[in-house]
Amino acid sequence: MDSLDATRLQARFIALRENKLFETFVIGVIIFSALVIGAKTYDLPPLAQNLIEVLDLGITLFFLVEIIIRFLAEGSIRRFFRKGWNLFDFVIVAASLMPLQESETALLGRLFRVFRVLRLVSIIPELRVLIAAFLRALPRMGYVSLLMFIIFYIYAAAGSFFFAHINPELWDNITIAMLTLFRVATFEDWTDVMYETMAVYPSSWLFYVSFIFIVAFVFLNMMIGIVLETLQREHEKFSMETGEGEAAEVHAIDNRTREMEQRLERMEEKIDRLIRVQAGRKG
Amino acid sequence: MDSLDATRLQARFIALRENKLFETFVIGVIIFSALVIGAKTYDLPPLAQNLIEVLDLGITLFFLVEIIIRFLAEGSIRRFFRKGWNLFDFVIVAASLMPLQESETALLGRLFRVFRVLRLVSIIPELRVLIAAFLRALPRMGYVSLLMFIIFYIYAAAGSFFFAHINPELWDNITIAMLTLFRVATFEDWTDVMYETMAVYPSSWLFYVSFIFIVAFVFLNMMIGIVLETLQREHEKFSMETGEGEAAEVHAIDNRTREMEQRLERMEEKIDRLIRVQAGRKG
Amino acid sequence: MDSLDATRLQARFIALRENKLFETFVIGVIIFSALVIGAKTYDLPPLAQNLIEVLDLGITLFFLVEIIIRFLAEGSIRRFFRKGWNLFDFVIVAASLMPLQESETALLGRLFRVFRVLRLVSIIPELRVLIAAFLRALPRMGYVSLLMFIIFYIYAAAGSFFFAHINPELWDNITIAMLTLFRVATFEDWTDVMYETMAVYPSSWLFYVSFIFIVAFVFLNMMIGIVLETLQREHEKFSMETGEGEAAEVHAIDNRTREMEQRLERMEEKIDRLIRVQAGRKG
Amino acid sequence: MDSLDATRLQARFIALRENKLFETFVIGVIIFSALVIGAKTYDLPPLAQNLIEVLDLGITLFFLVEIIIRFLAEGSIRRFFRKGWNLFDFVIVAASLMPLQESETALLGRLFRVFRVLRLVSIIPELRVLIAAFLRALPRMGYVSLLMFIIFYIYAAAGSFFFAHINPELWDNITIAMLTLFRVATFEDWTDVMYETMAVYPSSWLFYVSFIFIVAFVFLNMMIGIVLETLQREHEKFSMETGEGEAAEVHAIDNRTREMEQRLERMEEKIDRLIRVQAGRKG
Repeated sequence: MDSLDATRLQARFIALRENKLFETFVIGVIIFSALVIGAKTYDLPPLAQNLIEVLDLGITLFFLVEIIIRFLAEGSIRRFFRKGWNLFDFVIVAASLMPLQESETALLGRLFRVFRVLRLVSIIPELRVLIAAFLRALPRMGYVSLLMFIIFYIYAAAGSFFFAHINPELWDNITIAMLTLFRVATFEDWTDVMYETMAVYPSSWLFYVSFIFIVAFVFLNMMIGIVLETLQREHEKFSMETGEGEAAEVHAIDNRTREMEQRLERMEEKIDRLIRVQAGRKG
Repeated sequence: MDSLDATRLQARFIALRENKLFETFVIGVIIFSALVIGAKTYDLPPLAQNLIEVLDLGITLFFLVEIIIRFLAEGSIRRFFRKGWNLFDFVIVAASLMPLQESETALLGRLFRVFRVLRLVSIIPELRVLIAAFLRALPRMGYVSLLMFIIFYIYAAAGSFFFAHINPELWDNITIAMLTLFRVATFEDWTDVMYETMAVYPSSWLFYVSFIFIVAFVFLNMMIGIVLETLQREHEKFSMETGEGEAAEVHAIDNRTREMEQRLERMEEKIDRLIRVQAGRKG
Repeated sequence: MDSLDATRLQARFIALRENKLFETFVIGVIIFSALVIGAKTYDLPPLAQNLIEVLDLGITLFFLVEIIIRFLAEGSIRRFFRKGWNLFDFVIVAASLMPLQESETALLGRLFRVFRVLRLVSIIPELRVLIAAFLRALPRMGYVSLLMFIIFYIYAAAGSFFFAHINPELWDNITIAMLTLFRVATFEDWTDVMYETMAVYPSSWLFYVSFIFIVAFVFLNMMIGIVLETLQREHEKFSMETGEGEAAEVHAIDNRTREMEQRLERMEEKIDRLIRVQAGRKG
Repeated sequence: MDSLDATRLQARFIALRENKLFETFVIGVIIFSALVIGAKTYDLPPLAQNLIEVLDLGITLFFLVEIIIRFLAEGSIRRFFRKGWNLFDFVIVAASLMPLQESETALLGRLFRVFRVLRLVSIIPELRVLIAAFLRALPRMGYVSLLMFIIFYIYAAAGSFFFAHINPELWDNITIAMLTLFRVATFEDWTDVMYETMAVYPSSWLFYVSFIFIVAFVFLNMMIGIVLETLQREHEKFSMETGEGEAAEVHAIDNRTREMEQRLERMEEKIDRLIRVQAGRKG
């Protein structure tokens, strides 16, 4: 097989990958695979179970073929994996291929197949945009999450020191105490936790009330702040690209007044020249 | 009946429909019908129940007459149904006309009559504006809701695979598991659900904590993001229409500086001409 | 007593009212009266109770004297009551003067005295500003609250029709059903309510899930929307008044470019004249 | 030791303090000390416990040495304590040095060591920025918090007067009643509290529903309002500093148009002069 044939074959794979009908078919298979996964959670007659096993195998094979087509269309391994979503799809397909037949690991195999539903995210462009926006906002959340973690850690350590002997199930060590505090942060039966420790330390309500205040403030700050910042940037960027909206108009005015300034400078010089010439003639 | 008579009759119906007193009376009847619906939920003496039945019939007839008036005022079926709110009213009135006397379907008939209260929304302009704004924001919520659904689906499938044998009532199949996850998302006794599965899988808290984080982030993102975007657009639109506020001023400046630029160009040309003439005379 | 004396006396009352020391003393008495109210909720020895009764009487008299001073300082009844906060204070003082000694109404008398704490709001300017901002945002909340009420009413009527026979304590009539729905809206043990009705109508989860979605959307929309709108207006207004910030700068640019436009028009005419004169001389 | 030697020594301490490797090492020790604190909450064999005691002592000494280095690098007590974060670190280190060996106070000693984790906040610049932003927003929260407290106080007093005989555990005095109301504000089993009092006062639901509405409105108002204001200011400040973004562009346009205006005034005068000269010549 000479290089010309390989190029022609690659062109065919690209054509197949770009084909609208093929794409729709792939989306259809992904949705169908999601339904098969859902169906597996019901108690089904043995026949239906066997059918689902067969369908599952078929879907696995189809996904394998589809990713090979996209791989061949790309031509090189490096170019294929340079796109994050290709890597994402590859991992999902590879994970569901693992032969896990032991009773314990069979559950894990099932779990890997559930992740196939995530391929819906990678194939629908609008969802990819959403995830991309989410990932862009992620690093900013980093330091606030770290601050949150420090607050949880301190409260959990203090809670564990003071309350471990009252209820070991909730406060035995720092890990369990952090889970208990997460529960308090979601307001889930937090008064039960509080009344229990208040029976021993009557002023321990300060521990809970201060924790709720700090976490609610920091968390809400974080959430709303990051969402607003990200939105505002996207909004300005979009306004700049389309040339519509306030941000774009301000930018246009900025450029226009800069040009006007230069023109005015030029005009003033010319008027000065007119005056000089006139004055020279007069003299 | 010739066409002239028909037109004259239609003019009368239009006059009646536009009549302020008639409109107020219709609003009054709608509120009264809401009160009748509320009254039906109380245990009443047979006499009062009979009275309410009669009132109910009267209201049904009044609504029928009112919609016929509006229909005749419009003149043509197509023009009548082109307005979304007319269709809305028609469906509500038609639904309450259905003869449902069987014991089971009688409840359904009652339910249809409850929807009459919704006619308050269609008759008060401010509420129509609110609903219209809500509907405009709806399509944007589409893809985020889809993403949410995918997350729920994956967690529900995984939850059903792992926890079904622990508590079938909460995790038996994917539908029940999704309802359980909705409950977890509202923080409603979610720790009871968690502690139950943690007894079997001690690290299953990761399942719940990660789910709560993702859903809270995505959901809050969605809510605040969409509300803010919609508000900002409405605000800019309103500012543009009234000519007041920052957005309108920026727009005015944009136009004005554009005109100023053209004028300056023209002025520079004229000054150039002055210079040329002067130079020509000098030479 | 002639009119001059009356004017001189009024001037004295105004001086007293404006006196910083007197104002601080009034704030002190209000805080002290709040503490007395708080002390009354504790089980106290008879001696302390008697002391508190005396203090209570003293505070009542002081407030009476203080409002009379402010009334006399104002001079006329109409001018006094034109200020909303004066009316507010008058009602609070008048209410605590009512002689309620019966066992049942004594509680009401106590309640009226609790409202004295509200005088802190009327005497601290910053809190008055907060309340004023809150009241300004109130009318806008009106129609959204109406929409919310309609949604609650419809769901409560439907809930009462279908679920009254399942649990009369929660769904007996439309009033109780609305309270139950308010509980569902706060996510407070809403699954207990749901599982109860799902035992009879398995698909009644749709009722709850749809209700939570609608209310969460409408409520969050309302809250965030109104807060943002109000804030944005206050922000622009403040920026305009101080002449700092983006809104003020845009406004200044708007005015400046308008003037520049007129000046340019004038300049162009002058250049035109120069050209005409030059052309005339040339000819 | 003459003054030159002291200066040279100080220079060395400054060099050590600024050393990147030393800073990383300090961060490492802080994280390690946090892990030691976490480890203490587990049940450990005596050997490990002894090891941890030794490590704890080592960390305490290291922190002492580190703060002495920073103190000597600064040179003067006043200059050292002028930086808020130095005071913060000093208090944390000093507190963990206190000899608390009694069984009761030993717990307190442990608690002081937990606060060492807070040194992570003071050593990571990004976290210091976050805390600084939080502190800047704090004073604005002051008056809203005061308003919230007044609302809680009034409801708690009223609740204590009416409901103390129903359930003393929840309503006995104003302090307990405020804690109960905080619980109601977090929606934690608030209906249990309500149903209990509704058995005696059937219309007491008004008390709870109105309280939830007011608190939710005021609290959400406060949170979102303050976060947004702070963000908007930081955003404008950042835009001004970097010279990018809408606010900076508007500011640049503001300055530019001001200069243009002056130039135009100058130009018009020159044209006027041209006209006068021309007219003079003509005459």
